[in-house]
Amino acid sequence: MSITKNEIKLIKSLGQKKFRQQEQLFIVEGVKGIREFLDSEFELYQLFATDEIFAAETTLISPKDLQRISVLKTPNTAVAIFRMPKPKSVIESSLVLALDDIRDPGNLGTIIRLCDWFGIEHLVCSSETVDCYNPKVVQATMGSLTRVQIEYTDLENYIQNSKLETFGTFMNGSSIYSEALPKKGIIIMGNEANGISSAIESLVNKKIGIPRFGNIKATESLNVASAAAIILSAFKSH
Amino acid sequence: MSITKNEIKLIKSLGQKKFRQQEQLFIVEGVKGIREFLDSEFELYQLFATDEIFAAETTLISPKDLQRISVLKTPNTAVAIFRMPKPKSVIESSLVLALDDIRDPGNLGTIIRLCDWFGIEHLVCSSETVDCYNPKVVQATMGSLTRVQIEYTDLENYIQNSKLETFGTFMNGSSIYSEALPKKGIIIMGNEANGISSAIESLVNKKIGIPRFGNIKATESLNVASAAAIILSAFKSH
Repeated sequence: MSITKNEIKLIKSLGQKKFRQQEQLFIVEGVKGIREFLDSEFELYQLFATDEIFAAETTLISPKDLQRISVLKTPNTAVAIFRMPKPKSVIESSLVLALDDIRDPGNLGTIIRLCDWFGIEHLVCSSETVDCYNPKVVQATMGSLTRVQIEYTDLENYIQNSKLETFGTFMNGSSIYSEALPKKGIIIMGNEANGISSAIESLVNKKIGIPRFGNIKATESLNVASAAAIILSAFKSH
Repeated sequence: MSITKNEIKLIKSLGQKKFRQQEQLFIVEGVKGIREFLDSEFELYQLFATDEIFAAETTLISPKDLQRISVLKTPNTAVAIFRMPKPKSVIESSLVLALDDIRDPGNLGTIIRLCDWFGIEHLVCSSETVDCYNPKVVQATMGSLTRVQIEYTDLENYIQNSKLETFGTFMNGSSIYSEALPKKGIIIMGNEANGISSAIESLVNKKIGIPRFGNIKATESLNVASAAAIILSAFKSH
């Protein structure tokens, strides 16, 4: 057995969102990550490895072919293709994190890991948010992607139709350390450069923020993934 | 005026820690970053730009030369060389963050930004921690590097000689949400893969940790920069 030209072509194409959407497939690399997806509800489409190390059906390939299909500099024994799960509806009885146009794959990966850690089961992303099946995001989530439900939707529409209270994070919002933070609601984080869009801002019930303790003249904001860590921690510790 | 061969050679060499140490110089790229360093106590060594956009003395260079000396894919008008500051002694009357072998430049950059935000003036790094004048760290800190004092030292020795109480972060440490967290002390974060080393662990007065709210069977830990965000927030909000 070995890899075919068409299989190589498919794998390469899945680097692009357009083809992931079309095929409803995405790539997972590395033994540890693949094991987590195999142990989850995700459905395997095809598995390529240089060794018979998985219980699942494997197409054995040469290290040279692995190098050809891998996006990593130092490929890691195996590349798998999984099917995207069917979207589930978001439960209204819990904390939901909503992302308004997060663009950086590393930030989204970190935020998915944070949701997993803090038991946030539902992550709702605006349509412009970076794709969670982007190979860089998959790599950065380290298996958390198998445990967090992620939905891409029209965020404005989603919030308008939800009965949950909405909390938007702003530089000048009231301190998360003094606010009463509830057990349910929608927490909204904004774009890296521009924050929450004005359309979404108008739907926010409560503006919250992280007080700055350092030099107050400095204009920097916190990285959005750092802010998400602090805010989720504050909601869960209350 | 233009750039000389020796200047190009110097700039290229400053990509390596060995030469940064030897010359006590480091590189800052981009207009915004350079402005923050010019406005700080850092001393400018030499400034190269394609335009006269800074008040400081500038060597004008062509866009082509900028491309040659930049480490960025899309260089940003200017490259500056600054002198490393002389180390100051760490004040014992405040919160100090100590890093035990953090290796990833992005993680260190995020942690420096967090120190800036939370008013942690002193960051003490083990000698094996990634160099804060590494170009990737400088890029990731966005000017916070000008406001946080960073010292590289033998961490074991530093902790042994300090009178401050030490808090080490461990997966099984007691919850930061229920512990009394003081206004002063040394908070220790460990290496990305191995956590806090056993030599440092034996010097820890109190083991603290971030409770997991999600699937307790999952083996993932939080990224060290996310953990630092949550722990600094907990210390400052008490």
